[in-house]
Amino acid sequence: MRILGIDPGTAIVGYGVIDVENHRYTIVDYGCIRTAAHMYLPERLDRIYQGMNMLIKKYQPQEMAVEELFFNTNATTAISVGQARGVILLAAQQQDIPIGEYTPLQVKQALVGYGRAEKKQVQYMVKTFLNMMETPKPDDAADALALAICHSHSRKIG
Amino acid sequence: MRILGIDPGTAIVGYGVIDVENHRYTIVDYGCIRTAAHMYLPERLDRIYQGMNMLIKKYQPQEMAVEELFFNTNATTAISVGQARGVILLAAQQQDIPIGEYTPLQVKQALVGYGRAEKKQVQYMVKTFLNMMETPKPDDAADALALAICHSHSRKIG
Repeated sequence: MRILGIDPGTAIVGYGVIDVENHRYTIVDYGCIRTAAHMYLPERLDRIYQGMNMLIKKYQPQEMAVEELFFNTNATTAISVGQARGVILLAAQQQDIPIGEYTPLQVKQALVGYGRAEKKQVQYMVKTFLNMMETPKPDDAADALALAICHSHSRKIG
Repeated sequence: MRILGIDPGTAIVGYGVIDVENHRYTIVDYGCIRTAAHMYLPERLDRIYQGMNMLIKKYQPQEMAVEELFFNTNATTAISVGQARGVILLAAQQQDIPIGEYTPLQVKQALVGYGRAEKKQVQYMVKTFLNMMETPKPDDAADALALAICHSHSRKIG
């Protein structure tokens, strides 16, 4: 089973691709889709959409995991991340990829067993689960890998 | 000049199409794209995206006007409307349609000359500008027409 984890944002979308077999993980790839702040918003959204289509075409994931947004975040951030998240979900839907959504709390719970774990603990567990030599960078890519691992534990779809 | 006004939302997207020539307005069409609450969110976003593509194909607008989101709204609404807005902006961008964004305050200012005008006053002005017999229904479609009129006044693009 191949899972694509996505950490949404307008400036930077983190992604992580893992394979899971008999509860063992193999890392396939990770990285970011970036858009420049000076770009026209609709153009940035189009870049994210095209980037998602490229990732899906290249890695052919069976399922996808996306961060569920905080409800206690401020409205400006919520609108901005919401817009990016809209085109990300659209790209997945158009390729018939089932999507699981997880809050940061659920990700921490799944990886560290403690919902208030620190970012570093989550990153350490990502590195350990995936047998990596170093913590994946940037944070957005590490978060995306954590989402993919969380999804393989829970597979909460729809 | 043909303008498509869009009032974004996940459950209901209002639209209004007007022609403007020598400061005179002609109404072309108005209505809503609706998605059911029980539907899977990515599917709802896809319906909105397909609906936008249909509207653009059918009416061939030269420009588009979209509501700019409140920053004082609550985060849950902001995320939900943001997601819908993301796929709406994407559809316009993919068809190379320039987009103007206006806050409710700017729309009221443009139509009534007073930023704290009531909804009914705005609707009355929409009806008057467009020589309609009755106020357009539902409110989302009336708001979309108001956005299109506001855009023809200001043409604030990019």
